Amino acid sequence: MAVRAAVAGASGYAGGEVLRLLLAHPGIEIGALTGNSNAGQLLGALQPHLLPLAGRTLEPTTAEVLAGHDVVFLALPHGQSAAVAEQLGDDVLVVDMGADFRLKDAADWETFYGSPHAGTWPYGLPELPGARAALAGTKRIAVPGCYPTAVSLALFPAYEAGIAEPEAVIVAASGSSGAGKAAKPHLLGSEVMGSMSPYGVGGGHRHTPEMIQNLSAAAGERVGVSFTPTLAPMSRGILATCSAKAKPGARVTAETLRATYEKALADEPFVHLLPEGQWPATASVYGSNAVHIQVAYDEAAGRIIAISAIDNLAKGTAGGAIQSMNIALGLPEDTGLSTIGVAP
Amino acid sequence: MAVRAAVAGASGYAGGEVLRLLLAHPGIEIGALTGNSNAGQLLGALQPHLLPLAGRTLEPTTAEVLAGHDVVFLALPHGQSAAVAEQLGDDVLVVDMGADFRLKDAADWETFYGSPHAGTWPYGLPELPGARAALAGTKRIAVPGCYPTAVSLALFPAYEAGIAEPEAVIVAASGSSGAGKAAKPHLLGSEVMGSMSPYGVGGGHRHTPEMIQNLSAAAGERVGVSFTPTLAPMSRGILATCSAKAKPGARVTAETLRATYEKALADEPFVHLLPEGQWPATASVYGSNAVHIQVAYDEAAGRIIAISAIDNLAKGTAGGAIQSMNIALGLPEDTGLSTIGVAP
Amino acid sequence: MAVRAAVAGASGYAGGEVLRLLLAHPGIEIGALTGNSNAGQLLGALQPHLLPLAGRTLEPTTAEVLAGHDVVFLALPHGQSAAVAEQLGDDVLVVDMGADFRLKDAADWETFYGSPHAGTWPYGLPELPGARAALAGTKRIAVPGCYPTAVSLALFPAYEAGIAEPEAVIVAASGSSGAGKAAKPHLLGSEVMGSMSPYGVGGGHRHTPEMIQNLSAAAGERVGVSFTPTLAPMSRGILATCSAKAKPGARVTAETLRATYEKALADEPFVHLLPEGQWPATASVYGSNAVHIQVAYDEAAGRIIAISAIDNLAKGTAGGAIQSMNIALGLPEDTGLSTIGVAP
Amino acid sequence: MAVRAAVAGASGYAGGEVLRLLLAHPGIEIGALTGNSNAGQLLGALQPHLLPLAGRTLEPTTAEVLAGHDVVFLALPHGQSAAVAEQLGDDVLVVDMGADFRLKDAADWETFYGSPHAGTWPYGLPELPGARAALAGTKRIAVPGCYPTAVSLALFPAYEAGIAEPEAVIVAASGSSGAGKAAKPHLLGSEVMGSMSPYGVGGGHRHTPEMIQNLSAAAGERVGVSFTPTLAPMSRGILATCSAKAKPGARVTAETLRATYEKALADEPFVHLLPEGQWPATASVYGSNAVHIQVAYDEAAGRIIAISAIDNLAKGTAGGAIQSMNIALGLPEDTGLSTIGVAP
Repeated sequence: MAVRAAVAGASGYAGGEVLRLLLAHPGIEIGALTGNSNAGQLLGALQPHLLPLAGRTLEPTTAEVLAGHDVVFLALPHGQSAAVAEQLGDDVLVVDMGADFRLKDAADWETFYGSPHAGTWPYGLPELPGARAALAGTKRIAVPGCYPTAVSLALFPAYEAGIAEPEAVIVAASGSSGAGKAAKPHLLGSEVMGSMSPYGVGGGHRHTPEMIQNLSAAAGERVGVSFTPTLAPMSRGILATCSAKAKPGARVTAETLRATYEKALADEPFVHLLPEGQWPATASVYGSNAVHIQVAYDEAAGRIIAISAIDNLAKGTAGGAIQSMNIALGLPEDTGLSTIGVAP
Repeated sequence: MAVRAAVAGASGYAGGEVLRLLLAHPGIEIGALTGNSNAGQLLGALQPHLLPLAGRTLEPTTAEVLAGHDVVFLALPHGQSAAVAEQLGDDVLVVDMGADFRLKDAADWETFYGSPHAGTWPYGLPELPGARAALAGTKRIAVPGCYPTAVSLALFPAYEAGIAEPEAVIVAASGSSGAGKAAKPHLLGSEVMGSMSPYGVGGGHRHTPEMIQNLSAAAGERVGVSFTPTLAPMSRGILATCSAKAKPGARVTAETLRATYEKALADEPFVHLLPEGQWPATASVYGSNAVHIQVAYDEAAGRIIAISAIDNLAKGTAGGAIQSMNIALGLPEDTGLSTIGVAP
Repeated sequence: MAVRAAVAGASGYAGGEVLRLLLAHPGIEIGALTGNSNAGQLLGALQPHLLPLAGRTLEPTTAEVLAGHDVVFLALPHGQSAAVAEQLGDDVLVVDMGADFRLKDAADWETFYGSPHAGTWPYGLPELPGARAALAGTKRIAVPGCYPTAVSLALFPAYEAGIAEPEAVIVAASGSSGAGKAAKPHLLGSEVMGSMSPYGVGGGHRHTPEMIQNLSAAAGERVGVSFTPTLAPMSRGILATCSAKAKPGARVTAETLRATYEKALADEPFVHLLPEGQWPATASVYGSNAVHIQVAYDEAAGRIIAISAIDNLAKGTAGGAIQSMNIALGLPEDTGLSTIGVAP
Repeated sequence: MAVRAAVAGASGYAGGEVLRLLLAHPGIEIGALTGNSNAGQLLGALQPHLLPLAGRTLEPTTAEVLAGHDVVFLALPHGQSAAVAEQLGDDVLVVDMGADFRLKDAADWETFYGSPHAGTWPYGLPELPGARAALAGTKRIAVPGCYPTAVSLALFPAYEAGIAEPEAVIVAASGSSGAGKAAKPHLLGSEVMGSMSPYGVGGGHRHTPEMIQNLSAAAGERVGVSFTPTLAPMSRGILATCSAKAKPGARVTAETLRATYEKALADEPFVHLLPEGQWPATASVYGSNAVHIQVAYDEAAGRIIAISAIDNLAKGTAGGAIQSMNIALGLPEDTGLSTIGVAP
């Protein structure tokens, strides 16, 4: 019998991407779709690419509307998930694509989000050590942020292997869909096209403590992160350029570095270490759940460079959410998901 | 038992898109992949988005390599398909994505392509009157050009209904993938980004006689076409703005025009007349086989305006090829194809 | 002594472009800069590309602030110019970049803009027959719309020469800056990039009566216009593809058509008929006041095709405004303006 | 009397940009324009944006053609400048926009370029300590690479002040024009649009030793550089995100860091430290010689972050060349150059 899924926040980019992927998922029946200011509108007017759902009407985001589903995806602004989740029963699988339940450290939450910490749910990045066990059978999933997904997958093999110093420097470029669908002047096409610009520089971006949490867990020691996000003139995609000094005692070479990554990623269905000499491009993972990774050892600088490309809306948000849902529901992890990008 | 398909020209954009779609087709097993100058290379180096095929090696495009398949897709330069097709048996379904077998009029072929006419195969635009019958069970398919697909679907309902004067004016914008993967200076990213430019102006574009052929057949009289293609700063997509004067005797109004299109397109699985007030955008059909259409009647100018959006590589080439293949093989027409775009 | 110029609406795209060009104008001293919701802010925060003015503070748009200047540029929303202009003396040159004073026909204004007609000012498209005489010494200038600029310059030679039927079909692609800086969801970078889409289809776009006015004046008979604007994934630029049937009696050929355009445009400093075989590209006029034009005669279709490329913010708005201002002030027409695009 | 300038390599992007800027330079008369494979063609066919030079014919790049000019700009492939320069007299100002004469260390040259070292010329980055003195009156100028320009200007104040550890980590995004006009498949619009990708990762990019040379000179000690360039989906622009750990003894704070940069850049005509809270965007410097810089101190990570935006073709190549030429000729340094970007 099909699993019934509702999507709260179906008019936004994350909600739309969940629906796009759920439409291709053989085990899911799509139930209620909700919005706030857009309640009452046809989905076809807001998400014209989702043709099979064009005739659906958005309902308000209430407990009544969301009741009676097996899975509820929350694509809500940060801080709104807890209240909705509380009203859904413990037997409902709640998949939160917001930030509310990602962080373990309440002080970090309060510092970066400025509100009381709602709690911590199993973290929906199955590739991290121990993550699959925590997701199996769970009824609550905290989907990672898009940048932490790209960065953690690029760097955890090095930290898990103990070959990298605990100070990572990360510069990532993201497509504009990562900033959501709310109309703001600096996100206008006229401003974004033909321009690269940074934001949240200097340690203030909210995804920083999430990266520190993931990398520290892999390293077994606290990993500091210098993170600079930049806005790139494209709709989708994250390219994360991550580096850290090699630990002197680890005697890192290009060969040992590659072997470390090959071993760590060998069995992953979605994370792919590219052949030597080939570097990731966000276009190659467009629309897919794939992660392309390549590594290099800069001997002169003594640094390990790991670069990953993901689709921020797919593996970075909705694809990661469905991958984790599959694990929670006991389905094959790759059900309804693809490693094939839409290119060129 | 799975149908085995080979793709000749697998390193180009059309070949890559056929493979992307075939990978999602439940009834197909992918056989030989061939290239010319790229023979011997790994597909992963040339089409990194096709991760499941990354380890495949391109073979040379020869009859020997292509033998033993049930279906052979030809994604070759114009003029090369006939020689290859001749060497394949009559029991092999040959799907030609080049132009060689599209035109019925040998003189038109010679005028526009400057070589002897190779013949005419059943035309792979199932939505046109009579097309499905010709495709059922065929062993030879001529896949339409990308522009003729967009234009014919936008205008055939008006011509079939006899409400439009036989002089169509068409201006279409295409993404750069329509020009293929051969490196030419005017197709460099630096030239294409931030720029719109026309080409093939004044009646010389090779897709013009194909449009005339399709629209004339629908109208039952010769339809003249003024066609101006433009290159738009995007990778994929065609937006075709098509118009013709309304026949005075047809007493066209906005309501009768819409009714004409609703009736003509009612049962089409891929061609979708948008709700009133909503206009097509190429982003909405990105990566899908869907065609979005809208019509308007400009009363002051006395013109019918029909606008369509397609993905030039999908419905405009590889998707249309697979849709036609499905009919030829007796499979459900939409097997392995989607109406869901990848947006934003 | 320098002419002092104020700009009302300095925080928007039109206002910013006027300032960019005025900074390079040797005869102008930049005076007051005003905004509405942005009054009190530094211009550097809103227009960071205008480095020499970064320290200027926006003042409110009032008669007091605008008083005491020789020239006042109005870059205000439609319908607001008349009230401001009335408060400025008859000795001040008022250059309105809005639509309020472009149309001669009050009924047209009311049909398309839905408010009482404010009047008609000398029309700032110097290249049109008789326009320079009307602009010389004037104290009021109505700057044309961006689309009418591109379209009128592409087609007036054909209509002036009496070789085109009075029914023009126009499809134009514009960069997103033409829609202004107000944040609307459909203008987000995520929506615009990778997509072409039409709007205002079927005769409803407000620039239609302006085109009819210009072309009819050139033709000496009423010219009907079918106009379809499309939004292209770029910040700047308009490519206008314009066509009309050749008048049978005019015996148009490729040669006579070219000769007609060469003659009409021979002495124009900014409008350039490209060499045969070369077609306009918006990138080539980026940031400049140049207009690139090419024509073709489609013998099979019997249509004249004229295509123009402009920068919608420069020649299409602010450059045209300054060109007209130069004439009104008795300066050389090209003072401070360039025909050199910023490419690639 | 006007200075006569020739441009060798006028058909490429660097050559075109030099011409665009020289056309606006009041003291220059443009002489011979040369190309290799394009000799004999009209410049208008190759650089249609340079309208005033459209009728010029490209000549072959020979000593005869280049003779008789006061200044010769060389926009040639790496390794070709020395042979041409030798044939020009010592009284001719030769401005090399290639790499041949940038490096002081012959071993570095041979390691990164694989050919004998041609020598070292005065380095055309006037903002670096001591550079103006070396450029004054010189007859030979080595124009810096585009990345080293962006990176050196972002980091030299920190190194000159002795507040940064001598290990810099740099990730920079460049528009595709930086890769030149030679047609290569990975630079096609279809590949570049919608995609971010790295290249030259791990220390191999040829601009790395040039950065090390500049930063080490400023620091008075050897500065190691980890440099990762990425290709961004835009034509122009470089955004360089640069960081280094603060020296513990330097007691860096946000305030002292800002003060250091304010002091170092206070008198620079083209390098602009943005107001606090405002970050550079490449669009803001489009087409201009301006450099926008902002700095932050990430206290948690203990890192200084300095980000710069330049136009890679302007300040990064041709603008820097003309700025240095002005100094060499004794003209005001900003003659013919602008700090005003073309935006949006």
